Amino acid sequence: MSQPTAPPLVLVALGGHAFVKKNARGTIEDHETSAARISEVLMHLVEREYRLIITHGNGPQVGALLAQQELARHEVPPMPLDVLVAMTEGSLGYILQQSLLNRLGERKVRRWVVTMVTQVLVDEDDPAFQEPTKFIGPTLSERESERKRTRMGWEVAREGGDGEWRRVVPSPRPLRILQHRMIRDAACKGHIVVAGGGGGIPVRAEADGRLVGVEGVVDKDLTSSVLARDVGASLLVILTAEPSVYKNFGSPDQKPIGAVTLEEIEALLEAGHFAAGSMGPKIEAAIEFLRSGGRRALITDPDSLPEAIRGRAGTHVVGEV
Amino acid sequence: MSQPTAPPLVLVALGGHAFVKKNARGTIEDHETSAARISEVLMHLVEREYRLIITHGNGPQVGALLAQQELARHEVPPMPLDVLVAMTEGSLGYILQQSLLNRLGERKVRRWVVTMVTQVLVDEDDPAFQEPTKFIGPTLSERESERKRTRMGWEVAREGGDGEWRRVVPSPRPLRILQHRMIRDAACKGHIVVAGGGGGIPVRAEADGRLVGVEGVVDKDLTSSVLARDVGASLLVILTAEPSVYKNFGSPDQKPIGAVTLEEIEALLEAGHFAAGSMGPKIEAAIEFLRSGGRRALITDPDSLPEAIRGRAGTHVVGEV
Repeated sequence: MSQPTAPPLVLVALGGHAFVKKNARGTIEDHETSAARISEVLMHLVEREYRLIITHGNGPQVGALLAQQELARHEVPPMPLDVLVAMTEGSLGYILQQSLLNRLGERKVRRWVVTMVTQVLVDEDDPAFQEPTKFIGPTLSERESERKRTRMGWEVAREGGDGEWRRVVPSPRPLRILQHRMIRDAACKGHIVVAGGGGGIPVRAEADGRLVGVEGVVDKDLTSSVLARDVGASLLVILTAEPSVYKNFGSPDQKPIGAVTLEEIEALLEAGHFAAGSMGPKIEAAIEFLRSGGRRALITDPDSLPEAIRGRAGTHVVGEV
Repeated sequence: MSQPTAPPLVLVALGGHAFVKKNARGTIEDHETSAARISEVLMHLVEREYRLIITHGNGPQVGALLAQQELARHEVPPMPLDVLVAMTEGSLGYILQQSLLNRLGERKVRRWVVTMVTQVLVDEDDPAFQEPTKFIGPTLSERESERKRTRMGWEVAREGGDGEWRRVVPSPRPLRILQHRMIRDAACKGHIVVAGGGGGIPVRAEADGRLVGVEGVVDKDLTSSVLARDVGASLLVILTAEPSVYKNFGSPDQKPIGAVTLEEIEALLEAGHFAAGSMGPKIEAAIEFLRSGGRRALITDPDSLPEAIRGRAGTHVVGEV
């Protein structure tokens, strides 16, 4: 006779454009439409009574805040990047929690939703601090970028080496999610928890233990992986723009991957099958999660999620049984 | 023989200028200095192992965001007021949680801190929607204010009747805190919870139950009172600029109130002892809390809090035993 067991705890990492489609202006209507769409998809996991934690990106929104405070800088003191990330955790968390509550209400499902403002610890000796690689904020003229460099101490670079000038910041690796206990407890009680938005607010610890905000951003997929580990999730779902992961992506013999073991995907990553800027970090996040004891990771797009959770779409990476 | 009991659950409402002193510019340094000061004061409650929920205002910060997005409006789509409140819950929650974690670390106290993005339900038939009274954002020229009124549908008014033109929004009464269960559970586990920032994000329910954001702001003291009720707090502490409440405030025979019963303070409020714009809402919040079953409310300033929690300062309003 089967024993009743607790429903699985699932962490879903939403794609970078979950709230604003590419080339949309980023109005509140854009955000609400996109949030409604993604919430609808997540109801497939709610129907199964899964425990749910949701993470999301914030690239377009932090970009908008940076552009805004730059234009207003003579009248309103600008805030550092860690505080802007915190702002987007508030705003996007709210938009998503409202949308999820409305979908739950339509279905008469009595579950609550909460967003938790999440700090993520990074190592102050992370090599990323020596070599900032993450482009953020609006494009700059060469003259502006030089001025920002000398007056504000910004690092600036041309995108792709010869593109537009923009600010670049370090993207250190996440070590630990400071709020993971509260996130886990609320999720295990059945509440849906939005956390680690924008990759979390990066903080480092000084020699005496004091926490200090970092002018950088953490990769949201890596943060999702660390959070999934810290809360003991049994499944990490990484939503992206493609229905699955491909071998030889972009070449004529591109081939979707259905299921793959941890060892197999490590070998494929090593062999250079995945693009560094796009699928690479997602594969890495999946690998990290499985190496730290996670059982299963699923990479797919929102449209394919309903089929993927039935084992009929997406790329499933399997670790411990 | 006395039984061991759970430590009391206390809700502390920080004053409107907890993060930025009056006339300060509102830089990140201003915020961090103020957060460190208020966190230090809150350690007096931590030393007693009290369970803690903290609420705070956001007037200067929402004002800054409104000014910023107004200056940048031709390049970045502005967000509605509910989303801006959510942003300040993220940013101020982060600044406060970092500061609290650092004070806890110095004392080797193993407690965690989390900010929860909080929606507060208001009644769509609240009379406040017919008569907006809350001034927000930057001052406007008469011409600008006329343009905003006709093009954006803003309500505008002159502060004090003949002062500067500014936008006015409704300030409906809070009915219920949507995230109160998660806030209570985390606080009861010993975590310090920051919630209901800026009075919470006001939402109303449509006829079909769907939640919609409201272009308004909720009084933070009233929200604190409703949250204290919803979580079953035994004490509501309202921090303000004065060490205690006064009879005949501002007149030559002004007299501080030490302890007062619910019935007595209701009579004093009725008799017009408290200024409508300043102490009035705090007294009202205390009364609401005690009427709904709260045992005790304390109104004082941060400097007097250590003495006030020993019954040697502040105004203590007592309800049920």
